Amino acid sequence: MSQYTAPIRDMQFVMRELAGLDEVAKLPGCEEVSSDLVDAILDEANKFASGVLAPLNWSGDQEGAKWDNGSVKTATGWKDAYRQFTEAGWTALACDPQFGGQGLPKLIATAVMEMWKSANMAFSLCPMLTNGAIESITLRGTDDQKAAYLPKMVSGQWTGTMNLTEPQAGSDLAAVRTRAEPQPDGTYRIFGQKIFITYGEHDLTDNIVHLVLARLPDAPEGVKGISLFVVPKFVLNADGTPGARNDVHCVSIEHKLGIHASPTCVLAFGDKGGAIGTLVGEPNRGLEYMFIMMNEARFAVGMEGVALSERAYQHALTYAKDRVQGTEVGVRGGPKVSIIHHPDVRRMLMSMKSQTEAMRALAYVVGAATDMAHLHPDEAVRAQKQAFVDLMIPVVKGWCTENSIDIASTGVQVHGGMGFIEEAGAAQHLRDARITTIYEGTTAIQANDLIGRKIAREDGVTIKAVITEMRAVQARLGEQSGEAFVAIRKSLDVGISSLESAVEYILATYGKDVKAASVGSVPFLKLLGIVAGGWMMARAALVAQARIVQGAAGDDFYSTKIVTARFYADHILPQAHALAYSVVNGAAGAMDLSEAQF
Amino acid sequence: MSQYTAPIRDMQFVMRELAGLDEVAKLPGCEEVSSDLVDAILDEANKFASGVLAPLNWSGDQEGAKWDNGSVKTATGWKDAYRQFTEAGWTALACDPQFGGQGLPKLIATAVMEMWKSANMAFSLCPMLTNGAIESITLRGTDDQKAAYLPKMVSGQWTGTMNLTEPQAGSDLAAVRTRAEPQPDGTYRIFGQKIFITYGEHDLTDNIVHLVLARLPDAPEGVKGISLFVVPKFVLNADGTPGARNDVHCVSIEHKLGIHASPTCVLAFGDKGGAIGTLVGEPNRGLEYMFIMMNEARFAVGMEGVALSERAYQHALTYAKDRVQGTEVGVRGGPKVSIIHHPDVRRMLMSMKSQTEAMRALAYVVGAATDMAHLHPDEAVRAQKQAFVDLMIPVVKGWCTENSIDIASTGVQVHGGMGFIEEAGAAQHLRDARITTIYEGTTAIQANDLIGRKIAREDGVTIKAVITEMRAVQARLGEQSGEAFVAIRKSLDVGISSLESAVEYILATYGKDVKAASVGSVPFLKLLGIVAGGWMMARAALVAQARIVQGAAGDDFYSTKIVTARFYADHILPQAHALAYSVVNGAAGAMDLSEAQF
Repeated sequence: MSQYTAPIRDMQFVMRELAGLDEVAKLPGCEEVSSDLVDAILDEANKFASGVLAPLNWSGDQEGAKWDNGSVKTATGWKDAYRQFTEAGWTALACDPQFGGQGLPKLIATAVMEMWKSANMAFSLCPMLTNGAIESITLRGTDDQKAAYLPKMVSGQWTGTMNLTEPQAGSDLAAVRTRAEPQPDGTYRIFGQKIFITYGEHDLTDNIVHLVLARLPDAPEGVKGISLFVVPKFVLNADGTPGARNDVHCVSIEHKLGIHASPTCVLAFGDKGGAIGTLVGEPNRGLEYMFIMMNEARFAVGMEGVALSERAYQHALTYAKDRVQGTEVGVRGGPKVSIIHHPDVRRMLMSMKSQTEAMRALAYVVGAATDMAHLHPDEAVRAQKQAFVDLMIPVVKGWCTENSIDIASTGVQVHGGMGFIEEAGAAQHLRDARITTIYEGTTAIQANDLIGRKIAREDGVTIKAVITEMRAVQARLGEQSGEAFVAIRKSLDVGISSLESAVEYILATYGKDVKAASVGSVPFLKLLGIVAGGWMMARAALVAQARIVQGAAGDDFYSTKIVTARFYADHILPQAHALAYSVVNGAAGAMDLSEAQF
Repeated sequence: MSQYTAPIRDMQFVMRELAGLDEVAKLPGCEEVSSDLVDAILDEANKFASGVLAPLNWSGDQEGAKWDNGSVKTATGWKDAYRQFTEAGWTALACDPQFGGQGLPKLIATAVMEMWKSANMAFSLCPMLTNGAIESITLRGTDDQKAAYLPKMVSGQWTGTMNLTEPQAGSDLAAVRTRAEPQPDGTYRIFGQKIFITYGEHDLTDNIVHLVLARLPDAPEGVKGISLFVVPKFVLNADGTPGARNDVHCVSIEHKLGIHASPTCVLAFGDKGGAIGTLVGEPNRGLEYMFIMMNEARFAVGMEGVALSERAYQHALTYAKDRVQGTEVGVRGGPKVSIIHHPDVRRMLMSMKSQTEAMRALAYVVGAATDMAHLHPDEAVRAQKQAFVDLMIPVVKGWCTENSIDIASTGVQVHGGMGFIEEAGAAQHLRDARITTIYEGTTAIQANDLIGRKIAREDGVTIKAVITEMRAVQARLGEQSGEAFVAIRKSLDVGISSLESAVEYILATYGKDVKAASVGSVPFLKLLGIVAGGWMMARAALVAQARIVQGAAGDDFYSTKIVTARFYADHILPQAHALAYSVVNGAAGAMDLSEAQF
């Protein structure tokens, strides 16, 4: 099966030279972050990802998680890998030191998370969901809840889940029907069924902490009547150890296209008298609390897009270097060559590589901005960074995941006929990637959030500020000489203009014809992603050029980066114009048919 | 599981009003083709496709074909469906009446083939490969071979296969090593291993006729030393019945991403002394003969792109009309609505629908041109039509299949979380579609054929003639009033101009820098497909408008077609500009890295 090695050189480059690791290290609470520490963490994480997690990726996919009479058995090797994962302290990386976490910046945790997700996405979902649950309890839980659950979740001794979806309530959480009945002792009894619960049941730990959306008896209808509860699989004894089995049971797991090793559970609450839970925070504010961890989770799913793209790229690259087929184009009767010599294979590999690097850069920059938004001493800076993060989370989630499907599919194509054979492993990346544009909010949900809450509601203040920064980078490109910079500047210019026209349309239209604006929401999200990626690649090329001028020695990293940025400008950025055209002109054709005309 | 109903209204429209069914019916040998006959055939084919084949699509996928000690057992229901298929005479539809065929035009056979492929792609591969083998034997076989094999293959009593690929010889058939040793009796003994042989072994019929590429002992190296042989599974007795088991055995079948019910076989020839075969045509011209059926097969795979897109669209549409989720956009607290009301779901459905209709139109027009190229009394017309067919076959194959992956993936997205659950069936279409850009020549192989043999070699004569026709349609759009026609005209204009600039670049570059031209080959193929699709949709809109003016009554078909053409113009055609940009500007960024820099 395919190997994985973390792209540490590019990760270091992005962290240090694009995302501002040095600035992050100066933030209050980040005093211990040093260059050596970061090197050591990335190195250790790479060893774990490539040595322990990656070898289980394919076998886990083929074996899958198995349901048996309410229990779920994870694939061979999963328990041991999880034990090693927790023993090495990886679950605690970005968690609050108050509860045993290491309190490292999100920027560093992001790079490490990318490795887990590249190495073994199905495995990575377990700590990812646990982190979301930790975040919610940390921010909104009672002191008792924090004391009872957080240390064991941070250490990985217990895992966490998010229970939102019900059969009739997918994207529309207003339709949640699960109910919570208050008990005299201050606890609640939970009744209902939840579906699509990732790691809702498994054999990795001796307890599972479910965070569950449910309605109190007197709750208002809709989203403002949903509360959040902690419902452990085993109710805790007075000494905090797992006690009686709670009334939450896994009645089945799904047969899915991908992430086979990640059990996706149907959970029944209250079939035997009610599952015992405790309220998180205030009644009827559950959705708001869930959104705290949803932002985290959306960013993490965006990183799955980056990570799967990287894995698919490495997989395809290895094949392209090994597979000998045909002669050099234009050379008849010459020696057979590896397919990386063929122009279209080159084009495919460059397309995978350039987009993956652009996505990584944008995601890490958003990760660093999250650190700034949380920790910067200046309130104005915090607010500005938070606005940037809020704007970009749907883009990181939507754009990186949509791309990952195409990139994984391109990886299959590079393999030719072998790509369709499961044993080659390329198809698994496509199957795994296919969920990422759906869960934690579909691309359309991200796009509606983007044009509505993140752009129209604030009259475009943040997006306009971002565009100003893009224009400044474009101006700096003009100061460089050489064909590559001319090409990059030209495409970025057209890309930014396209973005501007689409922003103007959204701002002018959203208030008076929300449907027309919404037709363009997903094209707009892709447009913003593509142009933001071009902005990042342009920044990367400028840094690379400066380093070359300064005489940076060693590898070809910087010259490679400039070529990669140019490819992005020639092959990816030009799509911006078409997307803007659809945003601005595309509403009538999309909405004119009656339902009967379909 | 999902239902399928053939889109007979659109098929009829395309055949009659875009592809020139009446002209085809006037061709020599097509005298029996009448409007009533076409109606009856489409109606019967729809009954068979929807009633017999479609219900086996999902169960066949889940069960798959099973290998056991050299035999292959097809999925439950396959044998019965195949028997019914042959009894109804469907295998003989477009075959030569001399051997029992019905001799119907390709245009009609194309529509019928679309139905089989929409209903059950894995099933459809068996008659498709048989047809290819029939074509080769008909055109190049000896009289003995024709007499021995054709009647039984045309009737479906025996099936046929194409044996090209070997482990070291995928896209590069020059590397074929299977060898044929001449025997004193005029037969040959075949030794070697072939892979990826569709329906290379199965339990549907009492014989299988393998067409096999192999080298004679004195053959030159490379593609000019490959000969074509007929190798039956059972050697024929003197009376033509299957006799002794031949030395060709299925040693395994592949574990694939999709088309699980279609056995993809590894065939070993000659492990027990040599498989007995007879030569087709002249020695060393096997590849040339194989290409006769390859063109057929490439067109048929292009139709798989159309057919899977149609099936995925129908599947998604049904779900979108049924699934209730959320309220109308911009309406708070209103009633819950089906998701077809949501703008992004609309956009996705229109994108699927408009591209599927554009692809169908182009493919049927190419099908009709094939009939003209074969049968038209005027040699000049035949030559012109053949040039058009030669130009467009790689486009139908490459563009329709690439689109089908995206369209099937969009179908998954419309389903939300259910799309990822295998039982919902949407994922199967994506898994099945994923092979279509690979087999019978990858998209890159099609694209190289397109820019090299079909454009550069004839200095762009045919493509320029096509562009002239496109411009004429654009001019007619200018004579129409109304917003939709303004929008269609504007986009088509930009699309054609983009195509022109790319053609100029290919013509100027191919001779002096074939690598640079080849980097743009796949983007060029997609560009030509998108613009040709826009041309077809513009023609469709013009016909529709004329019918509306004439007072065509009844359904909303014509007004729907105009809206659909407009959607295509607003959302799909604008991509042409970006593709042309990549063709013209994209070589340097793609080729500048050394292999070590990856």
